[in-house]
Amino acid sequence: MSKGIVVQKYGGTSVTDIGRIKSVAKRVVNTRRAGYEVVVIVSALGHTTDKLIDLAMKITTSPPDRELDMLLSTGEQMSSALLAMAIHKLGQDAISFTGAQVGIVTDGSFTKARIIDINAKRIEEELKKGRIVIVAGFQGASVNQDITTLGRGGSNLTAVALAKVLNAKMCEMCTDVEGVFTADPRIVKNARKIDKLSYEEMFELASLGAQVLQPRSIEFAMKFGVPIHVRSSFSNKLGTIISKEVKAMEHIVVSGVALNKNEAKVTICDVPDKPGIAAKIFKDIAKENINVDMIIQNVSRTGATDVSFTVMGSELNKTIKASKDVAGKIGAGDVTVDKDIAKVSIVGIGMKSHSGVAADMFEALAEKSINIEMISTSEIKISCIVKKSLGEAAVRAIHEKFGLAKSKR
Amino acid sequence: MSKGIVVQKYGGTSVTDIGRIKSVAKRVVNTRRAGYEVVVIVSALGHTTDKLIDLAMKITTSPPDRELDMLLSTGEQMSSALLAMAIHKLGQDAISFTGAQVGIVTDGSFTKARIIDINAKRIEEELKKGRIVIVAGFQGASVNQDITTLGRGGSNLTAVALAKVLNAKMCEMCTDVEGVFTADPRIVKNARKIDKLSYEEMFELASLGAQVLQPRSIEFAMKFGVPIHVRSSFSNKLGTIISKEVKAMEHIVVSGVALNKNEAKVTICDVPDKPGIAAKIFKDIAKENINVDMIIQNVSRTGATDVSFTVMGSELNKTIKASKDVAGKIGAGDVTVDKDIAKVSIVGIGMKSHSGVAADMFEALAEKSINIEMISTSEIKISCIVKKSLGEAAVRAIHEKFGLAKSKR
Repeated sequence: MSKGIVVQKYGGTSVTDIGRIKSVAKRVVNTRRAGYEVVVIVSALGHTTDKLIDLAMKITTSPPDRELDMLLSTGEQMSSALLAMAIHKLGQDAISFTGAQVGIVTDGSFTKARIIDINAKRIEEELKKGRIVIVAGFQGASVNQDITTLGRGGSNLTAVALAKVLNAKMCEMCTDVEGVFTADPRIVKNARKIDKLSYEEMFELASLGAQVLQPRSIEFAMKFGVPIHVRSSFSNKLGTIISKEVKAMEHIVVSGVALNKNEAKVTICDVPDKPGIAAKIFKDIAKENINVDMIIQNVSRTGATDVSFTVMGSELNKTIKASKDVAGKIGAGDVTVDKDIAKVSIVGIGMKSHSGVAADMFEALAEKSINIEMISTSEIKISCIVKKSLGEAAVRAIHEKFGLAKSKR
Repeated sequence: MSKGIVVQKYGGTSVTDIGRIKSVAKRVVNTRRAGYEVVVIVSALGHTTDKLIDLAMKITTSPPDRELDMLLSTGEQMSSALLAMAIHKLGQDAISFTGAQVGIVTDGSFTKARIIDINAKRIEEELKKGRIVIVAGFQGASVNQDITTLGRGGSNLTAVALAKVLNAKMCEMCTDVEGVFTADPRIVKNARKIDKLSYEEMFELASLGAQVLQPRSIEFAMKFGVPIHVRSSFSNKLGTIISKEVKAMEHIVVSGVALNKNEAKVTICDVPDKPGIAAKIFKDIAKENINVDMIIQNVSRTGATDVSFTVMGSELNKTIKASKDVAGKIGAGDVTVDKDIAKVSIVGIGMKSHSGVAADMFEALAEKSINIEMISTSEIKISCIVKKSLGEAAVRAIHEKFGLAKSKR
């Protein structure tokens, strides 16, 4: 009797070479032999994707997106076939598929397609035959059979979507860390692995810079209630389970601290203080497809005010251009840039019902003489902008203040 | 107005690296701009296929055929996408497809599938939009969408099959030589490029060791009357046109000389001379999937005879085993092996209506004191087995005897 379906996703760091492919095969076979039906999603081997992009760039710096998807999708097809071979070698039956073959239907937005439908009939048939099913991550096909890729974190999306359609017991994200931590262990020595997190917390942590999962996959898992297990590819230890909020979670005020050093602050000076002026600014900036994170507008006393906001460093150049354009249009002054910033954030479901959390966070920073430049809050997170050089000290101070090193959940 | 459809196939030697991909793109674009609709079949880049096989072999020496096809088919998909990019870069619209995407339906014999149907609707649609269509060679998909490969020479087969379905004006096989020659130019200095050949002649030449095309593709082209042009990827010179036999061809007695040094001769000694004994021997050998080429049985004077036959060197070991088994069963004597042989053959449509051709060939060899060990003839070819060390001298003597260096067709 089957104990149910488990979806396991192995990312690029888990399949860096043939040796690792063999280790993954053993892990998959062990899960099968423990009585589960197993569907494996696999990323491209090692630096395959980078190498393929290099080849394309030798031909043209602006390849058509459709052809780029044709090219890049081969990486995951290769690793899927190799993993199937390695599982066969261990005496277990396995069969590999491309995204198109298992009916992952997407829209036609090449290089960043969205899944619109999955017909899992073939997977179900193969599972019934007792086979381990391997699916190339990161890819699908449009309704007219053109190959598409799903963009950054696409393999995670494939895993969550298949787990949903197959009604899997668990969607395991097997990676090179043991789970989600209360803070980056490279910064905070006694950072603790978190056993359980709500989707909302994980979503905020991911958005704030935790690298383990992309916000898009978590949003999808949350929407369909797919339970996720972030765990190590190299051990059998339990990792972090991400699921719906349960009562017990509310006792934990703060689950983790995140640090993001990739943002920059842009200030438009001397903005005329008229109704609708902020809307005008951010509408023009949104038109350029720039994602604005935090926004601060000082109260005006002189009829003109400064408007500051943060963006990803990679979008800084086009942001400066757009800001100068809009400053000219509305009769504002200079545009200044500050790249020397870090964003420190705390996340926790319990914040909803606990007051004084923000005050504790600010106090932790004050005790270390760390100045706060900007503040932004949501229901379950608080973010502060500080000087970049003080970011790590800020994380340690907050981790200590909230006593995160002690296990609670 | 379109001048019609041209199918161009570029083999591995034409796309060894990115530089070559760019050259091929130029050639394709020139054909398009000359007014033709162009469908391109492309092989895998350089040593991609070998590298993929190496990866598989690091995992297992006996990978499942289905997974091997999943793996190997990525090579042609990659080169197709890269060629499409290179064509775009030159300002011409191009779109690449896998075999499965353009409806190349095969049976389920992985690693050596046969094409059973082609639905060329998508190709026709794209050609109508003015696009150059690129198809990954060597592959298709079975009726249940499993990816298959077509075996050795598979890209040529893809090209001929698409040329047939699209009713193309010409199927160009673009390669690293300028056409089919009267003999291997490395052996015979004044060997001459042949302008025109019948399918039958090309079929015999290919079967006899000429490397340009596989017998399977020629058989297919012959069956459906697809005109083939074997030409160089690196020049615009006309190569060799292969088409139906026309009256003029009959005036040419001998079209070319071929040499094959990869065969071995096996002799089963003292075979009892009873009716049906040869049938028994070759039925048992055929059971082992061994392709026997020439067969000689001496007239018996003593009640026992020697039976000799030739096989490909790669099949020698299993042939020896099978021969010893059958020798034991029928009460024959020893099995001896001679690897020191070469097969020299002449091919020509004109032989049908000219007598004395064989005599001329034997005379050419006799004049150089080359001894003939075995002889085999068909309607349009004569083959002789000689000592391996004399094979090249034999080719030169015959080329000279029939005056092949002088242009005739």
